[in-house]
Amino acid sequence: MTVGIVGAGQLGRMLALAGYPLGLDFLCLDPAREAPAGQVAPQLHGAFTDRRLLARLLSRCEVVTFDWENVPVTGLAAVARRGRGRICPPLTALATGQDRVAEKRLFERLGIPTTRWHAVGSPQELRRALDRIGLPGVLKTRRLGYDGKGQAVVRSAAQAAAAWRKLGRAPLLYEEWVDFDCEVSIIGARGAGGATAVYPLCGNVHGAGILRLTLAPFGPSRWQRQAARYLTRVLEHFRYRGILTIEFFVRRGKLIANELAPRVHNSGHWTIEGAVTSQFENHLRAILGLPLGATTPLGHSAMVNLIGRLPPRGTLLKLEGVHLHEYGKAPRAGRKVGHCTIVEGTSARRDARARRLLRDLAVDVRIP
Amino acid sequence: MTVGIVGAGQLGRMLALAGYPLGLDFLCLDPAREAPAGQVAPQLHGAFTDRRLLARLLSRCEVVTFDWENVPVTGLAAVARRGRGRICPPLTALATGQDRVAEKRLFERLGIPTTRWHAVGSPQELRRALDRIGLPGVLKTRRLGYDGKGQAVVRSAAQAAAAWRKLGRAPLLYEEWVDFDCEVSIIGARGAGGATAVYPLCGNVHGAGILRLTLAPFGPSRWQRQAARYLTRVLEHFRYRGILTIEFFVRRGKLIANELAPRVHNSGHWTIEGAVTSQFENHLRAILGLPLGATTPLGHSAMVNLIGRLPPRGTLLKLEGVHLHEYGKAPRAGRKVGHCTIVEGTSARRDARARRLLRDLAVDVRIP
Repeated sequence: MTVGIVGAGQLGRMLALAGYPLGLDFLCLDPAREAPAGQVAPQLHGAFTDRRLLARLLSRCEVVTFDWENVPVTGLAAVARRGRGRICPPLTALATGQDRVAEKRLFERLGIPTTRWHAVGSPQELRRALDRIGLPGVLKTRRLGYDGKGQAVVRSAAQAAAAWRKLGRAPLLYEEWVDFDCEVSIIGARGAGGATAVYPLCGNVHGAGILRLTLAPFGPSRWQRQAARYLTRVLEHFRYRGILTIEFFVRRGKLIANELAPRVHNSGHWTIEGAVTSQFENHLRAILGLPLGATTPLGHSAMVNLIGRLPPRGTLLKLEGVHLHEYGKAPRAGRKVGHCTIVEGTSARRDARARRLLRDLAVDVRIP
Repeated sequence: MTVGIVGAGQLGRMLALAGYPLGLDFLCLDPAREAPAGQVAPQLHGAFTDRRLLARLLSRCEVVTFDWENVPVTGLAAVARRGRGRICPPLTALATGQDRVAEKRLFERLGIPTTRWHAVGSPQELRRALDRIGLPGVLKTRRLGYDGKGQAVVRSAAQAAAAWRKLGRAPLLYEEWVDFDCEVSIIGARGAGGATAVYPLCGNVHGAGILRLTLAPFGPSRWQRQAARYLTRVLEHFRYRGILTIEFFVRRGKLIANELAPRVHNSGHWTIEGAVTSQFENHLRAILGLPLGATTPLGHSAMVNLIGRLPPRGTLLKLEGVHLHEYGKAPRAGRKVGHCTIVEGTSARRDARARRLLRDLAVDVRIP
């Protein structure tokens, strides 16, 4: 049984590595040579918009999924309509995740608190947005933003003008700046027959817009319950199949939805060693109509992203209980090239070990 | 960094799957099409004795290992002598593991209790062996035995004659029949600088000569200590690099070495989910000179082999906490086509769940 993956990044790579023990085969589509998933599975080389290649992928696979939320929807939808191919998660969720305005509207429609926002397509609209939302705020592209790209913090009218000059060629969104106490994410799967399985809440620390550290389980149980309720609403809304993630700000104990990702998520990498079933295996189970696996945590986990370049292998492997995941990527500033995970019996021991690990890696983030 | 594997069976497959997260690449050599490891890594197709292919493998890999103990040593040794290739574990250990007489002599030399035995090359020697060792006993080929193949139990002179007719074309060994209380195995790694790491003792149940069930940790701590001492002697003797396994009979609380395997072992598959570092990752760490990982168990594990044909995926995956491993093999009677593992907090819960799993799989073995 072959699973197709549009995109051959590290998420695709970890999907394939989770699927081989289940006896699955994989086929990726990605324009990049030396793509992380292409090193562990066959790959079709070409553009995400190449309908001939998309059709070949769909015809050769039981089900096709994606490992990147910015995969163009139009071509995929057209090919799926013409063929008998099955795509999971649903393209409606993919399309929503690609457009910050559609995302905000969905959160509002489902009664999920989110930031105040205003669509911005002109300098006039930007002025109106500043009037209505106030300062500070964040000007973001509606599409193609990830890891802090396509965003500018706006603290003054002058900064707003500068941000408009930088980003204004694309449709934008102006959002209130949330002075959050912490950031969390909830990850869960919806499978055949509407069964759902939700992982423990993740506490996330970003640096320069990129996730640096995740702790799980995180926060009081009422955050977990609230986040799981919001997640379930989105899963049901889309009659979803697969793993879905929602990121939240937490301000004075209230969850404020920031964005959703219709895929496995960086903040869920700890589940490989830290949960009974990993997010990658559960995504595959969900899209293939297999029973979902338990999301029970096996302890207290910390996941640290390796950004830019990998430290020498021995440096990390000599630390007891550190699980290394390299993605097979060339080094580049700001690039996620791997991660490592620790799982401990108590949160105190986890935090102590995470602190040592962050120090050894010279990662300057504070454990929340 | 590329690791070569002579043999592309399920052990090679699981080595590759453990090595990808470490950023390693793999290249296998195996004559079989559709080999388990060849489905997840590039494969050179050809005979294990093809020196041209062996030379190519050695020249393209940082280090070459093997996933089967019956890989012919002569060709490998000749190619290694001529080239700059590095082979781990040492070929001396591989050669010993291939010859039951060499194995017995090694155990005796290192003071490791083993069964009484007698080499048999003629009907006269068989008579002498029966006189000296008595009945019942087991007549075995010196070479190429695995999973109960190349063996015959001998309970009478008539059976001895029949066994001779069946096996007598090859050099043989006659061994006492051990009326054991249970069977155990010890698995450990020796790495760079002579560091060693030993896993908890495994309790093994065979059926028709094939491993059906492993429980770990198993038995009193003095068995563990004794087995680890014996294992360490063998590791030091060979100045070993990699994972080594010794199987023992236990009779009246005493360990009696049965055989050694210079490789990762079926009775260690539980370590993928059941230990901090799997036997596969530790084998790679050891042969690459990386620090060894912790062998600490994460709970009480049971591993059940799937023999002959796989049950439908959903049957196993609907059982909570069951980790499935399919090897990508076509069904065939008596063939190991996969395994599954459960890890529980207590041995009582592990045993209860294992019992249910064995019943669901219609595997007729008793939990020791």
